[in-house]
Amino acid sequence: MTQHITLREVGLRDGLQIVKTIVPTQAKMEWIREEYSAGVKEIEVCSFVPAKLIPQFADSTEIVADSLRIRGLTVSALIPNMKGAQRGVELGVHKLNYVMSVSEGHNLANVRRTVAESLEDFSNIVAMLREVPAGSRPKLSGGLSTSFGCTIEGRVSEDRVVELAERLVESGADEIVIADTVGYGGPHAVRRVFERVLARVGSVPVFAHFHDTRGLGLANAVGALDAGVRYFDATLAGLGGCPHAPGATGNVVIEDLAFLCETMGYATGIDIGKLVAVRHILARELPNEKLSGAIAVAGLPREFPKAAASA
Amino acid sequence: MTQHITLREVGLRDGLQIVKTIVPTQAKMEWIREEYSAGVKEIEVCSFVPAKLIPQFADSTEIVADSLRIRGLTVSALIPNMKGAQRGVELGVHKLNYVMSVSEGHNLANVRRTVAESLEDFSNIVAMLREVPAGSRPKLSGGLSTSFGCTIEGRVSEDRVVELAERLVESGADEIVIADTVGYGGPHAVRRVFERVLARVGSVPVFAHFHDTRGLGLANAVGALDAGVRYFDATLAGLGGCPHAPGATGNVVIEDLAFLCETMGYATGIDIGKLVAVRHILARELPNEKLSGAIAVAGLPREFPKAAASA
Repeated sequence: MTQHITLREVGLRDGLQIVKTIVPTQAKMEWIREEYSAGVKEIEVCSFVPAKLIPQFADSTEIVADSLRIRGLTVSALIPNMKGAQRGVELGVHKLNYVMSVSEGHNLANVRRTVAESLEDFSNIVAMLREVPAGSRPKLSGGLSTSFGCTIEGRVSEDRVVELAERLVESGADEIVIADTVGYGGPHAVRRVFERVLARVGSVPVFAHFHDTRGLGLANAVGALDAGVRYFDATLAGLGGCPHAPGATGNVVIEDLAFLCETMGYATGIDIGKLVAVRHILARELPNEKLSGAIAVAGLPREFPKAAASA
Repeated sequence: MTQHITLREVGLRDGLQIVKTIVPTQAKMEWIREEYSAGVKEIEVCSFVPAKLIPQFADSTEIVADSLRIRGLTVSALIPNMKGAQRGVELGVHKLNYVMSVSEGHNLANVRRTVAESLEDFSNIVAMLREVPAGSRPKLSGGLSTSFGCTIEGRVSEDRVVELAERLVESGADEIVIADTVGYGGPHAVRRVFERVLARVGSVPVFAHFHDTRGLGLANAVGALDAGVRYFDATLAGLGGCPHAPGATGNVVIEDLAFLCETMGYATGIDIGKLVAVRHILARELPNEKLSGAIAVAGLPREFPKAAASA
């Protein structure tokens, strides 16, 4: 039986957060709607950070409200803290994506607290959510950035990644995201870490979030798939990047990742041709951003997906 | 014990053959020398095709003679037929890379004969080489293009790839190259085919030759490494391409492939920083060609290769 792989679009958050050009709300909604039509069923539509910090997210209220009207779409949003969680509950998002770093240095730089403080914050959010009536209670995702290394601290302990994933699930996380924020991972390390994490917390969905900073995004996806990972974050045209590597490629390209999965015999439910077509919105709104991706340039192979289905 | 991976530079052949700008002989030699200094020990320096067909290779005689002066470098050259083989013997190259396609349509288009005729041609070359004194007899490589699909014929039979690899080795091939000429392969198909080929002809080196046309070059390398492949073709800055996919990426980027191998705990013997530096020659000589590659932009991770060595 064909196994299903879930690809979550995170470009409206992880991509747009580093883009200076403010994308109009209408264009963001066009992106969300077209990508949903192409078969992407979960989209991280924004980040609940103060608009004065990242003006790109000033329209989060509207974006969430509009996205919730798309039947069948799981609307998720990044939250850096309790305040973001409360806002997410008010707006009615389906899933809150809490983020913290495995590396102390990165966590301090990114969310201005220690790892221990982040864990406590996470527990407080779980407690807050328990007070929300079950019918309107969002799911809570626990994300671990810099899981394969850190531009500030260098190496990161694999034991620590596994331990923190376990702690988050024990605290009440409904899913886990293991992120190679800076593109330091290699396929063997990726396979090893995900095998360990899945062995411990495989009762909840475990997402892999890769950046292609050093070219290994899809190679690492192979490692994760081989380990048993069935959930991935990615962005249209690889939008995103790394503040420490100017000009470098960003997140894994969602249309190429879908192609990879399909050639490996997995089902993504995505119409890759339709997904590639959504890039026209980025080309129009962000003419100065580099759009990455190979399938968009080279096209699908002959006899695809017939060939892929039996591959 | 760390396993060694051999990366062969094929950009001077597979890359330059589709580049219109004629690169001066001196610049080609600079490229060969610098890349050898960076740790690349085998380079396919040219193709023995008539200069009127591909003017880029008009200087093959000089290039081979100069390359042979680099002590420790294995100098190989592509040959499309007996005539090329004879020329290679005359010039004293170390290895002749014979190429044929698994797909009949592609073989006809590329070397203007049927697959059966190519096999016969190959046998005749083996017989010719047996007459050459052992001390000056080049090794003979048998390459199978379009092993994972063909832009002309679509799907290609895996059984046929394995069968042809066996036939070539039975005929006298000293090594085999399995090539995804058009970027149709996926990691699972790659792993499966290489496992089968290695099981049958693993007594000789089996090279994997991937193109990144559809973005899966490094992902496919993971499949090949997992299957046990220890020999790869690649090109500096991914020079190369596909006449059927204008603007698409070319061969696998050798510096990124070296990084992939090192992050997976293999030893390539390559100084990645020095290898990246060789790109200056391409930037200078081929200002209109797109130079691909992520490591050249993002740089190596902190604590590399220390981190890689234990990964």
